Amino acid sequence: VSPIPKLVDPLVEAWEATLLGWLAAHPSDDPAHDQGHLRRVWTTAARLAAEEAGADPLVVLAASLLHDVVNVAKDSPDRSSASRLAARRADAILRELGFPEGRLDAVVHAIEAHSYSAGIEPASIEARIVRDADRLDALGAIGVARCFAVAGMTRRALADGGDPAAERRPLDDGRYALDHFAVKLLALPETMATAAGRRLAEERARFLAEFRRRMIAELAGAA
Amino acid sequence: VSPIPKLVDPLVEAWEATLLGWLAAHPSDDPAHDQGHLRRVWTTAARLAAEEAGADPLVVLAASLLHDVVNVAKDSPDRSSASRLAARRADAILRELGFPEGRLDAVVHAIEAHSYSAGIEPASIEARIVRDADRLDALGAIGVARCFAVAGMTRRALADGGDPAAERRPLDDGRYALDHFAVKLLALPETMATAAGRRLAEERARFLAEFRRRMIAELAGAA
Repeated sequence: VSPIPKLVDPLVEAWEATLLGWLAAHPSDDPAHDQGHLRRVWTTAARLAAEEAGADPLVVLAASLLHDVVNVAKDSPDRSSASRLAARRADAILRELGFPEGRLDAVVHAIEAHSYSAGIEPASIEARIVRDADRLDALGAIGVARCFAVAGMTRRALADGGDPAAERRPLDDGRYALDHFAVKLLALPETMATAAGRRLAEERARFLAEFRRRMIAELAGAA
Repeated sequence: VSPIPKLVDPLVEAWEATLLGWLAAHPSDDPAHDQGHLRRVWTTAARLAAEEAGADPLVVLAASLLHDVVNVAKDSPDRSSASRLAARRADAILRELGFPEGRLDAVVHAIEAHSYSAGIEPASIEARIVRDADRLDALGAIGVARCFAVAGMTRRALADGGDPAAERRPLDDGRYALDHFAVKLLALPETMATAAGRRLAEERARFLAEFRRRMIAELAGAA
């Protein structure tokens, strides 16, 4: 995977500035889903798009930056409809800002299909790229930081000190943040839809697995 | 440093059960300062005590488990008096539970002197052990998890995506969680007061520094 590609499309550059301005005026107080997350997803999506033929960078941009525009709490019953709500809201925002109408449906689909819980298969290359980029932000050191930030926000325990690897109990990531690695994060590479995304995901998942082993060793008094 | 020593002192074992029972009845909803943290500090302190001659394990136990019994928010003006308040409250709790009176002053001193912000030098081996054990819990993978959990609780950004290593701005850990590594955590090994504590701290700080490098590389699009 190459370094972050320099944008050369003036239309994409202009919309990047517009959407970042919109986001700055509508800040999130969730450090795992703030403008930093949205910028990283866009940056990563642009890296993936550089390796995947035929992706429309304007659609990738808009879907990346607006995919979390409606944030539903992890434990809410509306969780599985969050991406549909976000897609509808993004559509309204983009129309208001004068986004090219012919590309709206593609943005809406990419946002609807980005989420783990929505269960919608990405039918376009842009949707596959945005979903992969969003999942990549749950892996690596960034993924570790976001996972424990969510634990802080939701007041969940970091780990089960007596059995951190869940050897004598079922995994329970509603209770222990570290369990989320084994419940969901470490399996993300298998779900990647682009070749570049899978390569990055496998490398970042290895880092996550190493971190988990280290934390378990510390909790066992062995490090 | 040897594995967790098996407790053989029946008085210490009895007080461990009593104090863990008291803590279970007074749970904390702060995942960085919950019963898991207190148990880890006690476990680590017991490891350090096994290498330091002359430490009274009962004093180490009580100070470890009650050192955060008054939790003052990181950004509160009362922050520097938190350890004095905790020491006073621990004294009252232990008196009520019938703790050996001759050891109360030693527990009170160890709790008062544990905190970074109180600025009280630990004058006893028990106080040095408890302070080192508490600081060790801010390092390693556990330290990473706790730092970002605090970011989640206080709704602080994980990092400055544009300049994560603070090369073109002053460090600001009130704004960016990752800055806390350079502001405070990576310097903790120098402050260790026991030989075993320093050895463990250096190893755990190396892990922290590696994690920081990795996160910076990911944010720069280089991993």
